[in-house]
Amino acid sequence: MVNGMENVENIQIERITSSGREKIDDIVTRELPLTIILNNEELVTLLCTPVNLKYLAAGYLQSEGIITRYDEINLVTVDERRGVVRVETKEDKGLPSDTFYKRVLTSGCGRGASFYSFADVQKELKVESQLEVSQAALFNLVNEFQHRSDMYRDTGGVHSAAICDSEKILVFSDDIGRHNAVDKVFGECLMNNILTRDKLVLTSGRISSEILIKVARRDIPVLVSRSAPTDLGVRLADQTGITLVGFARGHRMNIYTHNWRIVSQNDGN
Amino acid sequence: MVNGMENVENIQIERITSSGREKIDDIVTRELPLTIILNNEELVTLLCTPVNLKYLAAGYLQSEGIITRYDEINLVTVDERRGVVRVETKEDKGLPSDTFYKRVLTSGCGRGASFYSFADVQKELKVESQLEVSQAALFNLVNEFQHRSDMYRDTGGVHSAAICDSEKILVFSDDIGRHNAVDKVFGECLMNNILTRDKLVLTSGRISSEILIKVARRDIPVLVSRSAPTDLGVRLADQTGITLVGFARGHRMNIYTHNWRIVSQNDGN
Repeated sequence: MVNGMENVENIQIERITSSGREKIDDIVTRELPLTIILNNEELVTLLCTPVNLKYLAAGYLQSEGIITRYDEINLVTVDERRGVVRVETKEDKGLPSDTFYKRVLTSGCGRGASFYSFADVQKELKVESQLEVSQAALFNLVNEFQHRSDMYRDTGGVHSAAICDSEKILVFSDDIGRHNAVDKVFGECLMNNILTRDKLVLTSGRISSEILIKVARRDIPVLVSRSAPTDLGVRLADQTGITLVGFARGHRMNIYTHNWRIVSQNDGN
Repeated sequence: MVNGMENVENIQIERITSSGREKIDDIVTRELPLTIILNNEELVTLLCTPVNLKYLAAGYLQSEGIITRYDEINLVTVDERRGVVRVETKEDKGLPSDTFYKRVLTSGCGRGASFYSFADVQKELKVESQLEVSQAALFNLVNEFQHRSDMYRDTGGVHSAAICDSEKILVFSDDIGRHNAVDKVFGECLMNNILTRDKLVLTSGRISSEILIKVARRDIPVLVSRSAPTDLGVRLADQTGITLVGFARGHRMNIYTHNWRIVSQNDGN
């Protein structure tokens, strides 16, 4: 297993197959309730895979618009045993006030809570990158991404996300929540000063509106999923200028929006 | 398609396969931001599939412990176009206090320090049903469940949940969110006076702690998923007395906890 054993726990189960019942050793993916405490106030609790918790916290805060740059953060401390990440910002950010209560419980695994309005998103977020990627390069990335998503194969329980340039995967993360996996890779970029502009995001999970918004906030022009998008995900991709690719598996993919960024070999490039 | 067309939208996409690129008509699953307004105050916004919204609202309120019985509700009105469900309760439940907000915010995502600690859940929720189900009956239910999950096959974008007795599926729902699908079937039971005690829940989605807690709150003794559980899901199932089955597909399944409720043909019954 590529991911090490900290993500999984060994248990004994009973397996039923057509040849009978037997007790066997098996593994299940770990789930940690992680509370993010922002400047001594409780912000949110996320159910997550207990790896890269700093990145998760930083990525989440950026996704929610609470911070935009890493240097706004003074200190991040992780207490994994107690399931707490404490973040101190330089300016006292406090909790988002009114908007805090206009929270959106997201549709997915590990269900986050988000604090933005959709109308604002469509007005404010525009991705204008002129990046083009060849079909062949994209299929290579999808293939590499699939090979790295080992934990899913082992436990059937996690999503993966990656930040890539058109050559290779730069940052990769697993999580039981598809939102968390995306926040983790963005948090890693934020903390390690990896620019997201002109990069691609790969994800195993469905593309609903919140995922699209996370990606648009980072000025990412190409979002590729192994799974399906929702109509709202497609509409937001269209409006924000993001090339949205779904069902990317083997040598197939669907391009939902702004298909000009994916160039065939024949188109030159 | 079993589910009717209200769940999906027709769009034009570009499909890439090994034989080239072509523009084709396709469908994507719909996603609606649904705001639940409780006694004239905004409670939460859920991203969901725009079907069975009354059931979703009722099930959500019950999952969150805001109501326990349907007769606590005076009126539920749905405005799908605006993405709003209004719920009036008989007693003025008022706008939830600060602690309530914390509780709701964190409950979608798991534990909050101020909300249900897992210790409380383990103490308070005990499922003592002596229900037994034969392996064969369970495989039949899983098979029927799979056949009804047609929308997933069409659009790759939704989860399903069902309430069953040991013979047949009684209530079934799809949603882009696995939490919502479960809340919808429970909401339908609540509004149509279908008792959940001694029933089974089937779900396509992963079993994390919140799903387990929703099920334990309804006194459900058997929870069956096509997917994987997390370690926390398994631990809570063990402690609350729920028989947890995962990877139920075809003629295979894994029993994680309280396996005595699933009886082999040889055990009699």
